[in-house]
Amino acid sequence: MSRLTTTARRAQLVDLGLDLFSRLPYEDVSIERIADEAGISRGLLYHYFGGKRTFYVACLEVAAERLVEAAAPAPSGDPVLRARAGLEGWLDYVEGRAPAFLALMGGGIGTDTEVASILERTRGALSERVLTELGDAATRPRWRHAVRAWIGATERCTIDWLTARDLPREALLDALVDLLGASLTLAALADPVPGSALPTPPGPELR
Amino acid sequence: MSRLTTTARRAQLVDLGLDLFSRLPYEDVSIERIADEAGISRGLLYHYFGGKRTFYVACLEVAAERLVEAAAPAPSGDPVLRARAGLEGWLDYVEGRAPAFLALMGGGIGTDTEVASILERTRGALSERVLTELGDAATRPRWRHAVRAWIGATERCTIDWLTARDLPREALLDALVDLLGASLTLAALADPVPGSALPTPPGPELR
Repeated sequence: MSRLTTTARRAQLVDLGLDLFSRLPYEDVSIERIADEAGISRGLLYHYFGGKRTFYVACLEVAAERLVEAAAPAPSGDPVLRARAGLEGWLDYVEGRAPAFLALMGGGIGTDTEVASILERTRGALSERVLTELGDAATRPRWRHAVRAWIGATERCTIDWLTARDLPREALLDALVDLLGASLTLAALADPVPGSALPTPPGPELR
Repeated sequence: MSRLTTTARRAQLVDLGLDLFSRLPYEDVSIERIADEAGISRGLLYHYFGGKRTFYVACLEVAAERLVEAAAPAPSGDPVLRARAGLEGWLDYVEGRAPAFLALMGGGIGTDTEVASILERTRGALSERVLTELGDAATRPRWRHAVRAWIGATERCTIDWLTARDLPREALLDALVDLLGASLTLAALADPVPGSALPTPPGPELR
């Protein structure tokens, strides 16, 4: 491995880790294997990351950022279609890393406080992304719960769908987009925001 | 402590554990304390449960069963009101044990495979309870996802609400009942079940 700055070397190792951890169960990714594939000594890997668990957490931080980027809604256009584009990005990202995502969400690798806080931060970032679309409504607890409910629903359905594959992908995306519309419509009915239009009502008949 | 059968002694210890773990963080519940409060030796506690972690898991199993019982819908009456009664039972149960519930769901006590599988089984039992109300629709993937989405939404909103207490309790219950109605309505629109009535459409105007 050629000489690199500390930052570049760490980034390179994290890229390698993301690849390994997305393909293999946590237990099967050994420090030896990471060091071998990176062409560095185990000592140097410990020097950079302290250990396998810390290395995993560093990789997870980067994966979480990329997931949030991947789930960005389309920059313009119809709100429902924009949200659908964001959902597709979310699903693309986790579907390509299904074993790692399911292991993480199922607690199979032994969730700890640090991992839990990355998950919680990611949910927060995804919620805020939807809330910023809502203008004045975004600060209202009823609307915030509507969005958080949808984040919880999406997480749960994604986990179940990756496990059972019991719906066509398009049907899952439609279901989740419709549920977002319904959840926001209910918020608008329960806590109307003056001067703000009711979100597009949900329902497959609209597509 | 008087002489008891093994089963009765274990049940008595689990009751004590449920009380301790629902009031105190996991780290603050020591084997010494459990043994002291039970009036037995540490050795006997190890004999029954093997260790603190195993004891915690045994308590969690029982707590999960009680939660599922507590969340039972009202036995008869209007479907929306029946579902609301189940939700109130759910909220009563977790609200009375909020620190323990939040620590568990936040992974703060170090989630492991066994804990994760109890959580997953509990979600399954709660979903099945809703699905049994749906007759022929219960086996259809689109409907199953509608119910699982709602379970995910309820879990997420409960966690957030217990932390932030940013809505009146009644408003949270209304929001979640309405969302169940909406989620089922969307399933009925996307995958109509012949001969089955559309669920009551959601919306605060209906209450």
